[in-house]
Amino acid sequence: MKLRVFADRMSQPSRAVLIFCKLNGIDFEEVRIDISKGDHRSKEYKEINPMGQVPAIVDGNFKLFESHAILRYIAGAFPGVSDHWYPSDVFSRAKINSILDWHHSNLRRGSTALVQSTILGPALGLPLDSQAASEAEKFVLSSLSKIESIWLKDDARFLLGNPQPSIADLSLVCEIMQFEVLPDNDRERILGPFLKIMQWIENVKIATNPYFEEAHNILYRFKAKQRSKQVSLDKLPSKL
Amino acid sequence: MKLRVFADRMSQPSRAVLIFCKLNGIDFEEVRIDISKGDHRSKEYKEINPMGQVPAIVDGNFKLFESHAILRYIAGAFPGVSDHWYPSDVFSRAKINSILDWHHSNLRRGSTALVQSTILGPALGLPLDSQAASEAEKFVLSSLSKIESIWLKDDARFLLGNPQPSIADLSLVCEIMQFEVLPDNDRERILGPFLKIMQWIENVKIATNPYFEEAHNILYRFKAKQRSKQVSLDKLPSKL
Repeated sequence: MKLRVFADRMSQPSRAVLIFCKLNGIDFEEVRIDISKGDHRSKEYKEINPMGQVPAIVDGNFKLFESHAILRYIAGAFPGVSDHWYPSDVFSRAKINSILDWHHSNLRRGSTALVQSTILGPALGLPLDSQAASEAEKFVLSSLSKIESIWLKDDARFLLGNPQPSIADLSLVCEIMQFEVLPDNDRERILGPFLKIMQWIENVKIATNPYFEEAHNILYRFKAKQRSKQVSLDKLPSKL
Repeated sequence: MKLRVFADRMSQPSRAVLIFCKLNGIDFEEVRIDISKGDHRSKEYKEINPMGQVPAIVDGNFKLFESHAILRYIAGAFPGVSDHWYPSDVFSRAKINSILDWHHSNLRRGSTALVQSTILGPALGLPLDSQAASEAEKFVLSSLSKIESIWLKDDARFLLGNPQPSIADLSLVCEIMQFEVLPDNDRERILGPFLKIMQWIENVKIATNPYFEEAHNILYRFKAKQRSKQVSLDKLPSKL
């Protein structure tokens, strides 16, 4: 039985795994887990991923969750994945692991808190919260600044100055793409000053299209629907 | 030049890396970075780890930060590290990566928030905060419950039912050991109900001693100093 990827395209790590599989010509079936409908909390899905999060994969009898672990697994277990995605060289691989590990408690933490306390909250049954959004934005800005100054030095096309993207580029750029759901002026305020980040997003898009845009279409559609009712983040009610 | 490990033993990931190196007979130099004195913010240390966190390593010209990336690197780059720590089998390795990735946004996030909002906060210039402590405790309890039900099923001695420990056992147990600094009644309230977790901690201690206790002595000394002035977490002032 072919690889199954359980994913909700509204989730940034789900998109990273889907794009990665398509880019590398992996024969897989996408199984939609709609978080807004609570699919991730069903008994059936908990058999796949007891943590109740997306993405997860089933490959034969083997089940796996956590997107970075999945990306590493696919890079190692499926033939034909180019070495640049997750290099076999111990030093290059370690540097990519370092970025992936850093990501969890930094960019990902800030980004998730920012979109969930603002735009995506209501769809998930969470309250809008301007104070949480403000703290999350500071976290995001600090993370973006570190990515630029540490991993996108000089004219780096990809993280670490690599000539081709790695799974770290894909994971982090999919995270930043989540800001597409924010009102335009807020997204521009947050990302606008980071010229290297903006160029890097373009570089990753170009290197991974048409799969990148295909996976992100759901965000563009979500945004189009929201546009009529959007308010700026500074107009949100405070939970306190 | 031999491997240098920049660490503060008060930091749980620092201890995991130090114990791992000693267990595996790696010839290294421990360089103390005292967080309470701000060593991690010095210009010299930022040259080693621009994120200003511990641990970090320098191996020849190669610099690396993030403890999980360091553990993976040492397991791969140094001869003589037993395979059970980070198995070369793609399935076993993937399961261990999954735990390590999960750890960041779950147990680690809760544990760090809990000790920093209570006992360790003042040493780091942070305010005591009973509301943050209460939220962090819920996060910790949920994480411990998941570890027991998912990775310590039946009579598992180590995570995933493995017969010997992996770097995931070491990382997560060093995290839980941070609760040693809490008042006894609070530590007992949090950990007491988790009998499998308690047994697992003992199993990891036995498998990694004398290095485990040696690395954790700093916590026992810290606690002895604190004992005279300890109050329970429910007596802490709220930041609000």
